[in-house]
Amino acid sequence: MTGWVAVAGLGPGDEALVTPQVRAALDAATDIVGYIPYVARIAPRAGLVLHASDNRVELDRAAHALQMAADGRRVVVVSSGDPGVFAMASALFEALEHGPADWRALDIRILPGITAMLAAAASAGAPLGHDFCAINLSDNLKPWALIEKRLRLAAEADFAMAFYNPRSKSRPEGFARVLEILRDCCDEDRPVLFARAVSTPEEALRIVPLGRARPDMADMRTMVIVGSSLTRIVETPRGPVLYTPRSA
Amino acid sequence: MTGWVAVAGLGPGDEALVTPQVRAALDAATDIVGYIPYVARIAPRAGLVLHASDNRVELDRAAHALQMAADGRRVVVVSSGDPGVFAMASALFEALEHGPADWRALDIRILPGITAMLAAAASAGAPLGHDFCAINLSDNLKPWALIEKRLRLAAEADFAMAFYNPRSKSRPEGFARVLEILRDCCDEDRPVLFARAVSTPEEALRIVPLGRARPDMADMRTMVIVGSSLTRIVETPRGPVLYTPRSA
Repeated sequence: MTGWVAVAGLGPGDEALVTPQVRAALDAATDIVGYIPYVARIAPRAGLVLHASDNRVELDRAAHALQMAADGRRVVVVSSGDPGVFAMASALFEALEHGPADWRALDIRILPGITAMLAAAASAGAPLGHDFCAINLSDNLKPWALIEKRLRLAAEADFAMAFYNPRSKSRPEGFARVLEILRDCCDEDRPVLFARAVSTPEEALRIVPLGRARPDMADMRTMVIVGSSLTRIVETPRGPVLYTPRSA
Repeated sequence: MTGWVAVAGLGPGDEALVTPQVRAALDAATDIVGYIPYVARIAPRAGLVLHASDNRVELDRAAHALQMAADGRRVVVVSSGDPGVFAMASALFEALEHGPADWRALDIRILPGITAMLAAAASAGAPLGHDFCAINLSDNLKPWALIEKRLRLAAEADFAMAFYNPRSKSRPEGFARVLEILRDCCDEDRPVLFARAVSTPEEALRIVPLGRARPDMADMRTMVIVGSSLTRIVETPRGPVLYTPRSA
């Protein structure tokens, strides 16, 4: 048996957003590796071993996947959303770069998925329809000062901004500081989208002006998108639509 | 018959990257609307009308789709990649905002897709694994000065950068100026990915240091990704892998 590793994006939650490419890899796998809630999305079957691990052990998980592939297993590392956006693909290549030389000959593929910001944008309208940036607000792996610098420069560039990991129990104060910085750089009426559990039965969208955005509107399952200066709201009988025009 | 409009992302080219959600909408449609090469990806069938139009008529196309839905048709507007990223979703909401009031009651859904930058990133490794931005380099709909300003601020923020529409026959000089600006802001050895026709049989990837990047390495089918200061190349027997570590 020739081993391989695929790092696959499961999308934001709805099974109808899992690509056929990812589905085929899951069907061909002998082993699934990933964070507990993502592995829980994979249906058990004979011949398939599920390896669920806790958060913050990404490098160990990546090394485990690579070693199993070197041993001839067909391994799918699962991420939610897209594996290349604040997820397992970078961790896998970090492990590859610093691991045994023979790992570099392995068949490694990254299988893209629907990332949270694009699912959230689609549910709310088209807030990312013009130039934008994506920032991970977790300061687990980078200094807080760098997040603050990027926020100020992104506002100056007038990007729409998509924020991953806005808030967690271990970092309750960070997102409050993010909102303060944004209020310092942007108008009070700049629209902010809080998109929770997008594409799942618990999906909840809320659009508020920056002046009324509160830290507790986000949790670990929330994607936050801040419009650019041109982002608009269109009121409809079905609710507000948020979009950024193509022209500037 | 109750009409609706879905704006659907067909992904970068490979049919295995079309989500089941998009496939279901295409199967339920009476009318497909879009730019000629995207409509050409839809298999004809009895009862399905294909409306292919040329580039740069996005607002007319959007209004046509909305009017057909108001008349009770089931309309899918097709974009390549994701419809919310430099594509038809924003155009549809522009047409909605400025069109007849009764259009606002229509059932309108945006169905996300695999956008070009994420497919290109996946093919090359994980260059967008840390904070990044996406910039449309076409100056059809925005002043050139704004593009230049965003490039300089994005470099200062040390974002990885994904460039859509880097070069076209009508704007041959713009991308040369982009490379000059980047050389002014970034080290000569900053890796640049040119990813052409990703996920199709013509897919071609090239990674070069910024100092050796040339304008003619990009064309209309090329996605360009410029790494951040931390982006790394791992050499493997299967070719170079480009990735940005999670930590900064």
